[in-house]
Amino acid sequence: MKNLKLVMAENGTDVKKCRNISVGGVNIGEDFLLIGGPCSVESEEQIVSTAMAVKAAGANMLRGGAYKPRTSPYSFLGLGRLGLEYLHKAGKAAGLPIITEVVDTRDVYFISEFADVLQVGARNMQNFTLLIELGKVSRPVLLKRGMNATIEEWLNSAEYILNAGNPNVILCERGIRSFETYTRNTLDLSAVTVVKKLTHLPVVVDPSHATGRTDLVLTMSLSAIMAGCDGLEIEVHPEPAAALSDSEQQLTFGEFELFAEKVRRTINFRDKLYA
Amino acid sequence: MKNLKLVMAENGTDVKKCRNISVGGVNIGEDFLLIGGPCSVESEEQIVSTAMAVKAAGANMLRGGAYKPRTSPYSFLGLGRLGLEYLHKAGKAAGLPIITEVVDTRDVYFISEFADVLQVGARNMQNFTLLIELGKVSRPVLLKRGMNATIEEWLNSAEYILNAGNPNVILCERGIRSFETYTRNTLDLSAVTVVKKLTHLPVVVDPSHATGRTDLVLTMSLSAIMAGCDGLEIEVHPEPAAALSDSEQQLTFGEFELFAEKVRRTINFRDKLYA
Amino acid sequence: MKNLKLVMAENGTDVKKCRNISVGGVNIGEDFLLIGGPCSVESEEQIVSTAMAVKAAGANMLRGGAYKPRTSPYSFLGLGRLGLEYLHKAGKAAGLPIITEVVDTRDVYFISEFADVLQVGARNMQNFTLLIELGKVSRPVLLKRGMNATIEEWLNSAEYILNAGNPNVILCERGIRSFETYTRNTLDLSAVTVVKKLTHLPVVVDPSHATGRTDLVLTMSLSAIMAGCDGLEIEVHPEPAAALSDSEQQLTFGEFELFAEKVRRTINFRDKLYA
Amino acid sequence: MKNLKLVMAENGTDVKKCRNISVGGVNIGEDFLLIGGPCSVESEEQIVSTAMAVKAAGANMLRGGAYKPRTSPYSFLGLGRLGLEYLHKAGKAAGLPIITEVVDTRDVYFISEFADVLQVGARNMQNFTLLIELGKVSRPVLLKRGMNATIEEWLNSAEYILNAGNPNVILCERGIRSFETYTRNTLDLSAVTVVKKLTHLPVVVDPSHATGRTDLVLTMSLSAIMAGCDGLEIEVHPEPAAALSDSEQQLTFGEFELFAEKVRRTINFRDKLYA
Repeated sequence: MKNLKLVMAENGTDVKKCRNISVGGVNIGEDFLLIGGPCSVESEEQIVSTAMAVKAAGANMLRGGAYKPRTSPYSFLGLGRLGLEYLHKAGKAAGLPIITEVVDTRDVYFISEFADVLQVGARNMQNFTLLIELGKVSRPVLLKRGMNATIEEWLNSAEYILNAGNPNVILCERGIRSFETYTRNTLDLSAVTVVKKLTHLPVVVDPSHATGRTDLVLTMSLSAIMAGCDGLEIEVHPEPAAALSDSEQQLTFGEFELFAEKVRRTINFRDKLYA
Repeated sequence: MKNLKLVMAENGTDVKKCRNISVGGVNIGEDFLLIGGPCSVESEEQIVSTAMAVKAAGANMLRGGAYKPRTSPYSFLGLGRLGLEYLHKAGKAAGLPIITEVVDTRDVYFISEFADVLQVGARNMQNFTLLIELGKVSRPVLLKRGMNATIEEWLNSAEYILNAGNPNVILCERGIRSFETYTRNTLDLSAVTVVKKLTHLPVVVDPSHATGRTDLVLTMSLSAIMAGCDGLEIEVHPEPAAALSDSEQQLTFGEFELFAEKVRRTINFRDKLYA
Repeated sequence: MKNLKLVMAENGTDVKKCRNISVGGVNIGEDFLLIGGPCSVESEEQIVSTAMAVKAAGANMLRGGAYKPRTSPYSFLGLGRLGLEYLHKAGKAAGLPIITEVVDTRDVYFISEFADVLQVGARNMQNFTLLIELGKVSRPVLLKRGMNATIEEWLNSAEYILNAGNPNVILCERGIRSFETYTRNTLDLSAVTVVKKLTHLPVVVDPSHATGRTDLVLTMSLSAIMAGCDGLEIEVHPEPAAALSDSEQQLTFGEFELFAEKVRRTINFRDKLYA
Repeated sequence: MKNLKLVMAENGTDVKKCRNISVGGVNIGEDFLLIGGPCSVESEEQIVSTAMAVKAAGANMLRGGAYKPRTSPYSFLGLGRLGLEYLHKAGKAAGLPIITEVVDTRDVYFISEFADVLQVGARNMQNFTLLIELGKVSRPVLLKRGMNATIEEWLNSAEYILNAGNPNVILCERGIRSFETYTRNTLDLSAVTVVKKLTHLPVVVDPSHATGRTDLVLTMSLSAIMAGCDGLEIEVHPEPAAALSDSEQQLTFGEFELFAEKVRRTINFRDKLYA
């Protein structure tokens, strides 16, 4: 792990301390970051209702995809600018900061005007010109680990953003690709502890994409908390079965409420245990 | 997941309930199984002192390898029968049931006379004649997941043992092989929840082999507990740096004591949370 | 393999026939495409001398990176526009069409003015806005398979380009990431036959990146020919040990000359054998 | 690659030279080894007719499984001793030496009485007591690479056999497990050149298991020849669709005849090209 001078923790850190990143009233690193929201913004009603529901359940950030990277050009690719506007409106309505994905260097400034946090998806983790562009804005960046990225490559991608001028990077483990096909990807929770020890950056876990199955979201989230994560990104949809993308991995409002309660209790338990 | 009629849970299970397997006073499935001990039995003194230490810290089973599957023929291959005798003596001295690995069909009956639980290592998970032989004895069998085995293949291997007559199989997740090299293997904790949901067999996690790093053993163990595991297998050695095998992943006695205390607190927390 | 209406071959193809793509006097699909050149353009002298050498040895296209996607921000990232100018000059001097990598949607039109073929690197295979942008230009596009991309995902990425209006896509297998570390990646030659059977697109193989070792370039190239490829992309450098990137996988001029002769003989042999 | 003193070539070898292993009139390493036969011996008629057909087409060794390692205990597990007897009879009838798999240490001597070459399957590559037992017999051993074995681990397993006293080991590449699911496994042809360079052992390639698809067997075989292999192991069955195992990867007699002719021509071509 050489040449990682900016992301590395100076004297080693522990599972509790990392750089504080303040956004929309949330002090990431101090406050546990609970991001909820749909895979894609599909309509104003959908995103506003989800925003209100996740806020009520205890989330402190709203997610929603407007520009969707999809394997096939014939899949639903997101509502684009309209999706951003709905998301922005929903965040305002619920009093939640918002996070959304940027997929093109040309969109960085434009999306920065709408979103509080800019997300780099797994497929763009080594889109280096995008990383450099994100280093020039003041918004925090959530950097997902690539499906085939080693921890070292992931941290090098973070280094690109810091080196370009933006120190506010949040790492996000979202599963790596292995030979196992029962789950969508393989959630690598050991990587969470590893990057907590190596770097001073906060680390979020996305169990929805990692597993691709709602029946694994709860246990993997609580496991991730014990691994030391600073936040969770969870897909929530008013009616998962009707979702235009990722229908098998989104929680209902009711499921998210029960989920968030167990998350809170586990964070409290962890903070005492590791104190 | 077809053709798994014997290992499958009838109506789905939850993270708490599984088949009870009683061994040496421990009711696996009811009692949390905490296995401690060295990678290899190296001397009588080493294994007896370790037995006393892990017992004192709260372990309820002693591990120790006498027949070691090693990549190179020139590595330390274990003490063989002498190792078994030392292990047996150590178990007696500490009042702990013992578990050890069987690597040869010809050794199954012989080792059954010494050990309370017979372990199948990752490399032998598809040594089908060994599995069938283990189906004929009355000792419980701990079946490690192969480094490249899908969940379905792992459960099929368990099915071999049950089908041959032995219903007392304990599954053990110990990491799969991925492209990541920072950790020895990639611990697949989602597999723990998956097999808890699919089968009625208890599931143990071995974070020592999965990560190959002592600095990850604690967080991965507590994560595994939240994923729903019924036990943990932890490598403990009086002087890890001097160990004849796996020197980088074994805990000292002192580390294991602190570890075991946090494990207990987490099990208590989990059992209330998931109640 | 659904939703691949544009890339799929109508009635199945065989190892010889594919869409003809004409560029700089080369009829790809009819003529075997032999691309030679350095990983990175480092100086005018370096690229011009390489162009003359690979042309003399029988190459019919010149490669050279001006914008380099590198894991670390502190690595040599290419000469940029200056590199393009040198490459263009070298192509002119040697009478060879040139291919270079595009890493940013904003550069597509600009680089189209210099290069005859635009290359999409493995890390950008699912940079979908880049693919769409490349669908709008008239230059052929060489699309490398992502290190962790399934064949289906790779073909979907080609479908993006065709669907956006550019039918001239050349597929390039360059190794996938597996657990094996002796070679840089694992060259998947079965994928070559598979995509030749499924699609009407020409397929090129890059053994330099796949293996990362000059001592494997010859045999893997001849193997690739028997697997049915329509071309090869080979890294050649005046002094590989002094190269600013990929120093262990580039051939010298002398090695490339011997290499090209064996390639020609093998193509002739194959074309008769499969006739 | 340390501790490989017995398998390593002294001064490096090239793609043509390796240890000669003489079996049933075939000088492996000098003569190209073409093994043909069904996945499983199913009946006397099936194996005898296949033996006659593959012999007529030019094969110089007959394969057939009597003890089959299968993922599920409910699959066809082979005819056992009866299968061996049929195989032996078929070899006699056609004048071909025979190769069959050994899956149990207890069967090594017994099967040695029937078979000319003993095969270790991918799943048993690290069944070390089996390897040691095979080191004690005089029959050559064909050692398949494990699905998740690195080249170094594979060669260490060969070292076990040599170290136990049997120098006649034939390596067999049969595909590794990757994330790609279109093919059964990923044939790693670079490994063929690598082990030819590193060791003095002959190397055989099994494209039938590697790809799991008959439509890839020809091109992968010819590619393997150019990679430098000393032999091929090909599955052939009188009526593949009705086979009791591996029905999708076995060639018919007619397909094998055409196949063998192209193999011969390619070996001749290669031997001149690499001379």
